[in-house]
Amino acid sequence: MTGTTSAPLRGISPRTGEPVGDPVAVSTAQDVDVAARAAARAFPVWSAVPAADRARALDAAADALDAARDELVAVADAETALGEARLTGEVGRTSGQLRLFAEVLRDGGHVQAVLTPADPAAGRPDIRRMRQAIGPVAVFGASNFPFAFSVAGGDTASAVARIVAGALREAGAPEGVLALVTGFEAGAALVSHPAVKAAGFTGSPSGGRALYDLAAARPEPIPFYGELGSVNPVVVLPGAAAERAGEIAEGYAQSLTLGTGQFCTNPGLLFVPEEGALIDAVAARVGATATGAMLTSRIRDGYRAGVAERDEAPDLLPLASGSAGGDSFAVAPRVWRLSLKSFADRLDSLAEECFGPAGLVVTYPDLESLTEVLVSLPGSLTGSVHATHGDAAAAARVLTALRHRVGRLIHNGWPTGVAVCWAMHHGGPWPSTTAPLHTSVGATAIDRWLVPIAYQDCPDDLLPPELQNTNPLGIPRRVG
Amino acid sequence: MTGTTSAPLRGISPRTGEPVGDPVAVSTAQDVDVAARAAARAFPVWSAVPAADRARALDAAADALDAARDELVAVADAETALGEARLTGEVGRTSGQLRLFAEVLRDGGHVQAVLTPADPAAGRPDIRRMRQAIGPVAVFGASNFPFAFSVAGGDTASAVARIVAGALREAGAPEGVLALVTGFEAGAALVSHPAVKAAGFTGSPSGGRALYDLAAARPEPIPFYGELGSVNPVVVLPGAAAERAGEIAEGYAQSLTLGTGQFCTNPGLLFVPEEGALIDAVAARVGATATGAMLTSRIRDGYRAGVAERDEAPDLLPLASGSAGGDSFAVAPRVWRLSLKSFADRLDSLAEECFGPAGLVVTYPDLESLTEVLVSLPGSLTGSVHATHGDAAAAARVLTALRHRVGRLIHNGWPTGVAVCWAMHHGGPWPSTTAPLHTSVGATAIDRWLVPIAYQDCPDDLLPPELQNTNPLGIPRRVG
Repeated sequence: MTGTTSAPLRGISPRTGEPVGDPVAVSTAQDVDVAARAAARAFPVWSAVPAADRARALDAAADALDAARDELVAVADAETALGEARLTGEVGRTSGQLRLFAEVLRDGGHVQAVLTPADPAAGRPDIRRMRQAIGPVAVFGASNFPFAFSVAGGDTASAVARIVAGALREAGAPEGVLALVTGFEAGAALVSHPAVKAAGFTGSPSGGRALYDLAAARPEPIPFYGELGSVNPVVVLPGAAAERAGEIAEGYAQSLTLGTGQFCTNPGLLFVPEEGALIDAVAARVGATATGAMLTSRIRDGYRAGVAERDEAPDLLPLASGSAGGDSFAVAPRVWRLSLKSFADRLDSLAEECFGPAGLVVTYPDLESLTEVLVSLPGSLTGSVHATHGDAAAAARVLTALRHRVGRLIHNGWPTGVAVCWAMHHGGPWPSTTAPLHTSVGATAIDRWLVPIAYQDCPDDLLPPELQNTNPLGIPRRVG
Repeated sequence: MTGTTSAPLRGISPRTGEPVGDPVAVSTAQDVDVAARAAARAFPVWSAVPAADRARALDAAADALDAARDELVAVADAETALGEARLTGEVGRTSGQLRLFAEVLRDGGHVQAVLTPADPAAGRPDIRRMRQAIGPVAVFGASNFPFAFSVAGGDTASAVARIVAGALREAGAPEGVLALVTGFEAGAALVSHPAVKAAGFTGSPSGGRALYDLAAARPEPIPFYGELGSVNPVVVLPGAAAERAGEIAEGYAQSLTLGTGQFCTNPGLLFVPEEGALIDAVAARVGATATGAMLTSRIRDGYRAGVAERDEAPDLLPLASGSAGGDSFAVAPRVWRLSLKSFADRLDSLAEECFGPAGLVVTYPDLESLTEVLVSLPGSLTGSVHATHGDAAAAARVLTALRHRVGRLIHNGWPTGVAVCWAMHHGGPWPSTTAPLHTSVGATAIDRWLVPIAYQDCPDDLLPPELQNTNPLGIPRRVG
């Protein structure tokens, strides 16, 4: 870290390619240090606040975001071109997430309290275990979800941080509980800062790997929860392909092009039977799509490079292209077809994510060959199968093959759209995430930031309320 | 990895320094590859076996160990000199652990099944989540628990592996479910092998860090659950020191010298008030201790080096030495005293574990200075406080200070002795472990090897039984 100051960041309109909003200063190493130390001071203070009060603060932050919805949508749309409808929905999803975590805190099941009574005959003491917060954490925003996964351009980031920090402050949270730092070097400095005890990230495989390596190389390594690249295989079984070709082709084209393909659950690989009308239907529906602008010129350029690579690859036949709008960062959807054998031969390069509305349609000759390839796929967030009743036996084999390669299995549906609920798992084997035990969406996402603590033979009045005899918080507990 | 073969390993008697038992061949790179591939083939087969049948196999392995107890104790005592009483108890603990995990499998709560029903109005599908096995895992034995934490000398290792593998085979487990490889290079090769999906380790900070770095540097990094070094601070508050000096000194001397100090929960740091009779009592009781042999000459030499370092350190005053027996690898217990200020000034070096019966007795002037130091300690597996009713307010402050520095807080007890039960947490912040979210003892130790999987809109007959509508296994589930 040097003392030099980088040029301020500018938001750029994906529609015009021109700057929008105010310049945002890049955080210096000192900014990062100040933020991390303030968080470390705030941590024991805020941790000691009863869960019900922390839940109220989350609700207050949710209310503040909803109240500022129009302002936020306008700022974010200028910076991302994701459109008012989508962004309005996403503010609601984000405040909904905060309220879900408020519910998680009130429920108390997330601390996983377990009480094992003493057994004097066996010489066993009284042991009570719960989970508590790990400490200050760094979370990296992802530009494709400017609210729900945090922050896109600088103005959206600043606006969200200002609103949420204000709500937390009014709800009694100490200074330092939430801070925003900006810039590439600031991210690296944060992951390396001794006061930071864990980090979460959503972004590119290369950026995520670099930060993962930094987290692992610290004198005290920290958990790094990165969500990197995912190709989200979708298998169409013969019965479904024959019965519902049009519907499936339409669903695929919509899922592939939603948000200009900028979803981590974008269906990058479609496996279809060699025979039948589905391929033609896919070509027709994808050919009829039209997408908008990508988020940044860097993302657009990455997509173009990926498309060029596929165009030049042997055995890949262009199947269809959609149309690009007139926006500055606009790109066209594009799909190629190839045989299962060609795909398997170059699986390492072809099973890499190309971020954007690009898809490979792989034709398979039989179930046996298909499942052999499925078990060799790199880890993905999702795997989907389209099946009729007649396909049930085949569907079972496909689900079994994908079960250890993905984090979520979808039956007769599309991977885009991730419900924020108690049962959701949004994670998966490498490279879809760096931490296959964890999810970044849903109630159990809180697990990433919790560590266990056990109390042995502690008098009741020295125990946290979660573990006291009378269970004063009324939380779910296991005794045994 | 080269094709050269290392010399076979020999078990060495800690009592005589002479070889015991048969030579054990060091595993080659090819041995490791064969074992890892066999485990990868066995994984989906064994995973698909109903939990109740896998539980029966664990019970069978427990029965087989109990049946072979006399043989195992004799072999292990020759290799470790830990004594028949302790080793007999440890075989029972080990079979008890296997039965606890059989109970965990039958209970089914470990899969953490959660069912979120569809909400068509909100466009939300049916999502059901459970946890499943991560894949083949590598586990490193620790010599200080030849059975419970696996394997010491080569003969104990071979005997345990033979007995457990035989029981698993008879219970229907496929070939490859359990394999034993031996040697330093084999361990590194195992952690780096693509078929291995996680690793567990108990051992030295340097060895653990090297393996952690290997696991993190893989093209596909894997979780590495290492238990490294821990100093296990114990605080004696003024009331307890005044009322129970003799009892506390006796408990400390016993805990410090148990198993010749070769416990990861050995109380390396004792904080006592500056004034009072406790110090003299500690000196007297430690002076009266006598310990046996350490496990290996390398461990003994490491202990001697640590003792020499402390003897030469400024501000450390020798407080007491126990006596060593006449065994070849015997060492004497030893404690030093120093002021809190001296300790705080060189915290980095003095708060490092010296494996064996060595202790620092740190005198503190007041609670304020003490808690300032406690929050700066490196992570430990345990933290203990000795207190009377009159010490309650001080005890609360000490527990709060230690709460984020240790994995288990003990009131009026000693850290050695780790109950194997549902509530136990045997883990902690770095360097006590590499993975502060997890435990290596107790029912939740299974969490290290489980990853979530979600099913979306899946027909009931394609769901695993854990998630089917009628809950055929009768496991605990959350709906909501």
